Amino acid sequence: MKPKPTSESRAVKTAIVLPPDTNNLGTIFGGKVMAYIDDMAGLSAMRHSRMTVVAASTDSVDFLHPIRSDHAICLESFVTWTHKTSMEVFVKVVGEDLRTGKRTVCATAFLTSVALDDQGNPHPVPGVIPETELEKRLYDSAPERARTRNNRRRKSQHLAKDFGT
Amino acid sequence: MKPKPTSESRAVKTAIVLPPDTNNLGTIFGGKVMAYIDDMAGLSAMRHSRMTVVAASTDSVDFLHPIRSDHAICLESFVTWTHKTSMEVFVKVVGEDLRTGKRTVCATAFLTSVALDDQGNPHPVPGVIPETELEKRLYDSAPERARTRNNRRRKSQHLAKDFGT
Amino acid sequence: MKPKPTSESRAVKTAIVLPPDTNNLGTIFGGKVMAYIDDMAGLSAMRHSRMTVVAASTDSVDFLHPIRSDHAICLESFVTWTHKTSMEVFVKVVGEDLRTGKRTVCATAFLTSVALDDQGNPHPVPGVIPETELEKRLYDSAPERARTRNNRRRKSQHLAKDFGT
Amino acid sequence: MKPKPTSESRAVKTAIVLPPDTNNLGTIFGGKVMAYIDDMAGLSAMRHSRMTVVAASTDSVDFLHPIRSDHAICLESFVTWTHKTSMEVFVKVVGEDLRTGKRTVCATAFLTSVALDDQGNPHPVPGVIPETELEKRLYDSAPERARTRNNRRRKSQHLAKDFGT
Amino acid sequence: MKPKPTSESRAVKTAIVLPPDTNNLGTIFGGKVMAYIDDMAGLSAMRHSRMTVVAASTDSVDFLHPIRSDHAICLESFVTWTHKTSMEVFVKVVGEDLRTGKRTVCATAFLTSVALDDQGNPHPVPGVIPETELEKRLYDSAPERARTRNNRRRKSQHLAKDFGT
Amino acid sequence: MKPKPTSESRAVKTAIVLPPDTNNLGTIFGGKVMAYIDDMAGLSAMRHSRMTVVAASTDSVDFLHPIRSDHAICLESFVTWTHKTSMEVFVKVVGEDLRTGKRTVCATAFLTSVALDDQGNPHPVPGVIPETELEKRLYDSAPERARTRNNRRRKSQHLAKDFGT
Repeated sequence: MKPKPTSESRAVKTAIVLPPDTNNLGTIFGGKVMAYIDDMAGLSAMRHSRMTVVAASTDSVDFLHPIRSDHAICLESFVTWTHKTSMEVFVKVVGEDLRTGKRTVCATAFLTSVALDDQGNPHPVPGVIPETELEKRLYDSAPERARTRNNRRRKSQHLAKDFGT
Repeated sequence: MKPKPTSESRAVKTAIVLPPDTNNLGTIFGGKVMAYIDDMAGLSAMRHSRMTVVAASTDSVDFLHPIRSDHAICLESFVTWTHKTSMEVFVKVVGEDLRTGKRTVCATAFLTSVALDDQGNPHPVPGVIPETELEKRLYDSAPERARTRNNRRRKSQHLAKDFGT
Repeated sequence: MKPKPTSESRAVKTAIVLPPDTNNLGTIFGGKVMAYIDDMAGLSAMRHSRMTVVAASTDSVDFLHPIRSDHAICLESFVTWTHKTSMEVFVKVVGEDLRTGKRTVCATAFLTSVALDDQGNPHPVPGVIPETELEKRLYDSAPERARTRNNRRRKSQHLAKDFGT
Repeated sequence: MKPKPTSESRAVKTAIVLPPDTNNLGTIFGGKVMAYIDDMAGLSAMRHSRMTVVAASTDSVDFLHPIRSDHAICLESFVTWTHKTSMEVFVKVVGEDLRTGKRTVCATAFLTSVALDDQGNPHPVPGVIPETELEKRLYDSAPERARTRNNRRRKSQHLAKDFGT
Repeated sequence: MKPKPTSESRAVKTAIVLPPDTNNLGTIFGGKVMAYIDDMAGLSAMRHSRMTVVAASTDSVDFLHPIRSDHAICLESFVTWTHKTSMEVFVKVVGEDLRTGKRTVCATAFLTSVALDDQGNPHPVPGVIPETELEKRLYDSAPERARTRNNRRRKSQHLAKDFGT
Repeated sequence: MKPKPTSESRAVKTAIVLPPDTNNLGTIFGGKVMAYIDDMAGLSAMRHSRMTVVAASTDSVDFLHPIRSDHAICLESFVTWTHKTSMEVFVKVVGEDLRTGKRTVCATAFLTSVALDDQGNPHPVPGVIPETELEKRLYDSAPERARTRNNRRRKSQHLAKDFGT
């Protein structure tokens, strides 16, 4: 499989934050942001692999600034790195005050997805060719995040086994 | 502030997984699970602090098994540890086959929330008294997760600063 | 079929009441409460029968107190009594002021569900063994509610026949 | 206050049943029907009283036939009878097979709403003048349903008091 | 195929405008109104043709007045005219202040739907017999709207071809 | 007010089409597409005017091809032309088969929005500087669409006046 440049998995979503999306502080719910982020991860992972994908983990979502009702939420995502059947996706969430145009990075997230063949089994995916400076920085730091994630995932499985349902 | 036993922040949610909650594989969306998890974190953090809270980060959500349409999703959460104004919440997600009663741990997650006073400023929260073996294990391992989180959060802020909107 | 203790069908759901769930008085919609109650009835009826179930009737939902936005809605349900293929489910709805911890019973409801076999035909269900004082009181008063319900249901069918569509 | 003919509170709603509204049997959720019924009760009670109203009880919803995905759900409601500040609303739910035109009464429901003045206190409402045969039959049988309801509501309040939250 | 009077395709929908349906001006979203209008067009087109239908175009939606939260939105629709396999549907949207009874026409819309046979191919539909003055006026002006629509649709197809994806 | 290049109002939204968004043919609802289109029009009109905006009309939505569940819906919009206080927005809707990458133009739409000042009164907006060939073609053809729209809107107002509520 030929590696693909990051640009092939890039996805963009913009939406107005509406009153039903917001909590009693007038800012968008964490849960709504997380649902948008999950959708972006699926889009980028499918654009990279051109296969069915399933979410394997949400490694981190850091909420840096709230986004207010009536502002826009602007999400951008791409596959940063792959390993065998799994893809790491980076999602950047920007808030835009639609009346002034001021834009602020409000959250960043890393997720992993696994590609599946037609029988639902994990299937290898192409590698990634990073191009911009951001893409290169995230590509280079990916193996360390993968180690942290595998470590943590092993602990999650132990927790599940040790303490049951 | 007097520390509180973990049982005071415990929250439980059970729901039937319905067709609109599921993807084309017939299993619940990652985004729907993430929205439920976010709601649980808010419930536990408010029960512990009895204050308004905002999501600070979703540190990890590990999807260990899918949950099928028509099965139940059963979530349980509690505050594992606190530090000044912030609370770490653990959420366990169990899938239950409603026809057989078989239960499987499907995901585990750690999130952090910050308590706010009436002016919207961070406000200190009580400590946690862990009681069960699981609670103690999570309490003891919390400082290490906090270090990883702070590290990662600093990197997220650098990414935001270095690469802008 | 061996009768089952009420604890086997018990289900619990907690959720934060969000602005989109509330009307112009800032309290949760009757319709939203009714949808939650219906979900609980399904959960308890499936946990008791371990079969597919369909709603047969909502016998009564008494709204005793409103629940405000930002408070928690806490639902608890169990099968109180069964008769051949049908199960009566009791649902208690409690509102919790998340900032003070004050809890109030806000609604109580009785519903009936019917168990179905794989061909979609009604199928007998196990009996119920009540344990707590509440469970016993509801078990003992169930036959009278069943008479009222059958009476009313007959009238509903007559109305449908006499006045058409 | 001058009594009003039933026709003044009549409301009609038609909607296509869509896949997200249906369960794994391909028929509309009880919870979705209950949410529609609640909306109808609000519409009829406001058209009769021309005041803010709150749901007081759902006295009964009898599911006589399921409604399939892609069929239409057709609801019709009116205020049958009033007593001081409260109104009884009848809702009829008809399923229509949109490909054949065949219509079936699928559920009937009785609910009560209370009118509120600007301070949120219960406020008297006009009486009802029934005109058709169905309206007269429901008007005449309303006092008996009111007695059953008050009886049941008293028991609900006792349950709430005796067994707490 | 025997032509059908307009009354056979008439559909009515009434709903309370709720806070989650409204924007930051407290009035219903254009997008929500458009979704309701689309549902009405489907209902009327299926009632006229008694076949599966798909939306072909939304020719115009003119927003004449906003509808406020807590008012009712009242929609009425019917098939005005047909041509071979396609039906033109007119939808009128009225806002009702539920506290005063004052009603205002808030939007009018024309849409077209195409009937499909069981293989998903376009299938001829019966003609329309207009009865009221409004129905006749819309029937008579339909051919001119059809010309405008076909013109515009051809331009849309050219745009799609000339400028690609 | 200085005119602005079209690029300043450009907005992009990508989303996976999910089962709850689709009808019984497995393709996205017209109503869901219309809600997305309305959101895009709001985004582009606010980015151009940097003011509050309200929908004035949806002039046309031509559905050229259906979009299947599990494919992506990709929307792109910009302000094509302005006149005093009103803006015409063009929205292009592309379907992408996420497994093959094949993209098809599925709908095109024109809408108008009006800018409002802080008192809710219409407020003039900057002109548009078209840059690409598509932008120029739409800019040049806008006055003719405006005439058609004004004509039609006048007829809508007459219909509303002549036939009432």
